[in-house]
Amino acid sequence: MELIRIPRIMQESCKKYLLKGRTIGFVPTMGALHDGHMSLIGRARVENDIVVTSLFVNPIQFGPSEDFEKYPREIENDRKKMQNSDVDILFLPAGDQMYPRDFSTFVHVDAVSKRLCDSFRPEHFKGVSTVVAKLLNIVSPTRAYFGQKDFQQTIVIKRMVKDLNFDSEIVVCPTVREQDGLAMSSRNLYLDEEQRKAAPVLYRTLNIAADAVKSGTKSPAEIRELMRALLSAEKFITEVDYASLYDPETFDEIDEKKRDILIAAAVRFGDVRLIDNLLVTI
Amino acid sequence: MELIRIPRIMQESCKKYLLKGRTIGFVPTMGALHDGHMSLIGRARVENDIVVTSLFVNPIQFGPSEDFEKYPREIENDRKKMQNSDVDILFLPAGDQMYPRDFSTFVHVDAVSKRLCDSFRPEHFKGVSTVVAKLLNIVSPTRAYFGQKDFQQTIVIKRMVKDLNFDSEIVVCPTVREQDGLAMSSRNLYLDEEQRKAAPVLYRTLNIAADAVKSGTKSPAEIRELMRALLSAEKFITEVDYASLYDPETFDEIDEKKRDILIAAAVRFGDVRLIDNLLVTI
Repeated sequence: MELIRIPRIMQESCKKYLLKGRTIGFVPTMGALHDGHMSLIGRARVENDIVVTSLFVNPIQFGPSEDFEKYPREIENDRKKMQNSDVDILFLPAGDQMYPRDFSTFVHVDAVSKRLCDSFRPEHFKGVSTVVAKLLNIVSPTRAYFGQKDFQQTIVIKRMVKDLNFDSEIVVCPTVREQDGLAMSSRNLYLDEEQRKAAPVLYRTLNIAADAVKSGTKSPAEIRELMRALLSAEKFITEVDYASLYDPETFDEIDEKKRDILIAAAVRFGDVRLIDNLLVTI
Repeated sequence: MELIRIPRIMQESCKKYLLKGRTIGFVPTMGALHDGHMSLIGRARVENDIVVTSLFVNPIQFGPSEDFEKYPREIENDRKKMQNSDVDILFLPAGDQMYPRDFSTFVHVDAVSKRLCDSFRPEHFKGVSTVVAKLLNIVSPTRAYFGQKDFQQTIVIKRMVKDLNFDSEIVVCPTVREQDGLAMSSRNLYLDEEQRKAAPVLYRTLNIAADAVKSGTKSPAEIRELMRALLSAEKFITEVDYASLYDPETFDEIDEKKRDILIAAAVRFGDVRLIDNLLVTI
């Protein structure tokens, strides 16, 4: 596995492969790799000639009061995992290489950003779309892989790629879960033992809501109420940011039955914010 | 000359040339071609294997009260000029191909946009950087050519290309002028006979300012005053948007002598807004 730290050199390396007609599969990460990341890398390996990953904890997608400084960093461990998964190139840039002091360009995806998580993490998606625009230009991937756990992120990125005519396919892969159903996330590492035991309530609640949607016995408003009740009843959950049924294209909360429904929730276990979602087609 | 209207097909065509190792020189235009455009095309022809132009009057860079509807459109004439200049591909997209109804992604270049022209044409540079981001992704040019007449535009685009890691070189070419010094611009077509006769006062004023800068006998404040006086004395000029000395990197108005000085002005002849600039190194 080649390790490259300089954007310009990374761009040249990827271009060489593209000029030889090779396809590039790209998995951008913020490190602290778990099986969710590994499933993305595995899929990229199967579908492309060259697999490129990046490891960069992107400062501009964290709010001032958020966990940028303490976000888990396990670079050596991550490197080994990537090496063992047959990754061809790891891009590991320094912060000032990605954002020099005079950096001042930002990509805004207006319509689909201003919902759900954005209400609680303003500026978050602007940071995500900007760094993904940069990475797509540096790597020029044939396909880039993202996990469904961050559903809104995948929609924002797809929208950006379409609107700005990036020549990459965005591939969204299923959420990988722990045995007890908790969606894998680097932030799970923050949970203490009791919070970790309680955390599967999030996935359980989504499943109960999904069953209710499929059975058709409850209205969207009733299901919303049920979700809130189930989550609020868990004593380690200190805050429910949102928990409801949404249109998966627009993120409008839905009040009538639709063909495709996104069941999504974000909750806080103290300082730790967890999100999860299920996409239901009826 | 090939004519392509669909972004996806344009992207595929350009990619084929790039895969063969050809360089692409790109000249984006809004049509109504004059000798300034032709000089960009000529330079692109000399420096690249393939020359690509675009002709698209970009709606999102015009303000609501501006001249989008009446902006000069001479498509047949422009086509012939491009054909005669040995252009390989003309990209001529329809508006809804570039901006479908659900379009919602915009590129903002914060630092260098919020000065000079932006005060008078708010949102203008957001429209420029967004369309140029799209065009760079569609064409993937080795080099893209812009005229120095739109100096602030060239700085905004260079900043965006650097910040978002686009793999294209931005080439800025000297302003081409009429015999009497008026900078070539598609908007010159709007001037009536008397306004047209008076218009060279803009370039004359810039030159007087440049001489004053070089001779070192006047302070920046005095030169500013002189420029305003010369422009305001012209009866067909109905408004001076700005006229001063600037730092060419930041567009801060300068009060002390610097090595590089941008002398720039924007004036209105009735509804017609003209800009011009000189870059002076002392």
